Amino acid sequence: MPMYVVGHKIPDSDSICGAIALAYLKNQIGEEAVAARLGELSPETAFILERFGFEAPEYKTSYAGEQVYIVDHSELTQAPDDIAKATIVGIVDHHKLGDLTTDTPLECWIRPVGCSNTVIKMMYDFYQVAIPKNIAGIMMCAILSDTVIFKSPTCTTADIRCVEALAEIAGIEDYKALGMEMFKVKSAVEGTPARDLVMRDFKDFNMNGNLVGIGQLEVIDLSVFDAIKAELEADIKALKVEGNRHSVLLLLTDIMKEGSELLVVSDDAELINRAYGKTPVDGKVWLDGVLSRKKQVVPQLQAAFA
Amino acid sequence: MPMYVVGHKIPDSDSICGAIALAYLKNQIGEEAVAARLGELSPETAFILERFGFEAPEYKTSYAGEQVYIVDHSELTQAPDDIAKATIVGIVDHHKLGDLTTDTPLECWIRPVGCSNTVIKMMYDFYQVAIPKNIAGIMMCAILSDTVIFKSPTCTTADIRCVEALAEIAGIEDYKALGMEMFKVKSAVEGTPARDLVMRDFKDFNMNGNLVGIGQLEVIDLSVFDAIKAELEADIKALKVEGNRHSVLLLLTDIMKEGSELLVVSDDAELINRAYGKTPVDGKVWLDGVLSRKKQVVPQLQAAFA
Repeated sequence: MPMYVVGHKIPDSDSICGAIALAYLKNQIGEEAVAARLGELSPETAFILERFGFEAPEYKTSYAGEQVYIVDHSELTQAPDDIAKATIVGIVDHHKLGDLTTDTPLECWIRPVGCSNTVIKMMYDFYQVAIPKNIAGIMMCAILSDTVIFKSPTCTTADIRCVEALAEIAGIEDYKALGMEMFKVKSAVEGTPARDLVMRDFKDFNMNGNLVGIGQLEVIDLSVFDAIKAELEADIKALKVEGNRHSVLLLLTDIMKEGSELLVVSDDAELINRAYGKTPVDGKVWLDGVLSRKKQVVPQLQAAFA
Repeated sequence: MPMYVVGHKIPDSDSICGAIALAYLKNQIGEEAVAARLGELSPETAFILERFGFEAPEYKTSYAGEQVYIVDHSELTQAPDDIAKATIVGIVDHHKLGDLTTDTPLECWIRPVGCSNTVIKMMYDFYQVAIPKNIAGIMMCAILSDTVIFKSPTCTTADIRCVEALAEIAGIEDYKALGMEMFKVKSAVEGTPARDLVMRDFKDFNMNGNLVGIGQLEVIDLSVFDAIKAELEADIKALKVEGNRHSVLLLLTDIMKEGSELLVVSDDAELINRAYGKTPVDGKVWLDGVLSRKKQVVPQLQAAFA
């Protein structure tokens, strides 16, 4: 029986590229593994897979009775709906420790670095398995995406060294140029329905018993949102009601100005002020220097709920 | 501010030796660390520390505001009472994934092997730090204890190779003889109050909302319990009431016959039959081949509660 290697719901490039890279590694060390995904590819991820010649992993949402290796999260809200009926054999991640639990011993490769693929590179090194050229390429792109080409405060020297090593394996001379190409693909939001944009990189969290959804859109220039901001605001309001959420936050991140405009709807008018020391006006506030949901948004919000 | 490296409540040799070994490693890689413990040393652990010339780690139960590296568990019930007020910076473990969560990214070195010290050896290798002779000695003893000198079904080839490597560093030629010496110390139960014996290696679990305590005593010959079994049975009854527990199990493990007599008190008369396919008579049942709480007792019980 093969194990399925799968990232979080609404998969980002780290989840998809990580599933492919880890499934390959597991197969090389004699453990049958199949890469899977819980949702559609984002335009960025589709660009990466096409660039290095990969098909999308198998779309699979039910894992009852299966062995599963979890990539890029440890939160029940982000895992397959029936994960409690599966056997989790491992977790590779770089986030806070979430509320997934298991009945049996497992392996966890979790490190406070910028990207799960940096940890997967450590796994390749541990097992002394050579990384194929095209897998090195997608791993490198995942790290450039998660670290916002090293600009994110989540980026560590381990991530930078890892990208350098992978770029050499993949034969990419100017990896920063490839990173910018990726973020240009990500910035092309025109013509996309508001709901698709809000859900493109959206994660739900259980914060002290409250369901909180946090989306993020990283672009090269925030002006791409000028014409559709009202639609985005209306959509997060709808999303809050539909999902019975306590709050929905949407980060519009400008990777060149290095900050985020936060759009928010919440049952608690004081929440954002408690978390970030700033009060939204008309449900909007600029958070200077904020690039990372994981490091600069989630922990502060979690503390505000405690 | 140093981090504290601390194992579980009612520490066993893996928790104590692991805290010492990991604190040393962290100090070597430039992260200030202090080994700590949540309870008294067992006679076995005292024997190991004396054999290799170590003092007991600092006794410390409160960690509010501190940085903590957790050893040998990931369960809230086994962690410091105020762990929610501490920052967990890492976890090294070899059990199922428990219900500890964090607000911030951390490192987790969790592997399905026989002992946390086997994982700590991997950490030494990763950081390329040489293991001092006396630290190799206590790490080796912890692995021999947790794997019942390789007899436990939890023992993996990684554990065996690790003991062999550590024995060479420590300069111990006959490590199995040292292991038997350790288990003889463990088997000397005469004159010890029943409560002290029951609590010597006792862990609480949250099983689907029910508090379940499971103790284990590993000896070379079960006849050492003949004179005190009635007292042990009375004591687990008392412990169940005192702690408002759903069930208390006590495993009397014969490491030579390779099986355990299970003493049990429970609110659910069918629980043991559902979990292990055997019905206790007068609160007692022999479980042939059962040596490991982690692998042969906890998962089955967890499933019986699901």
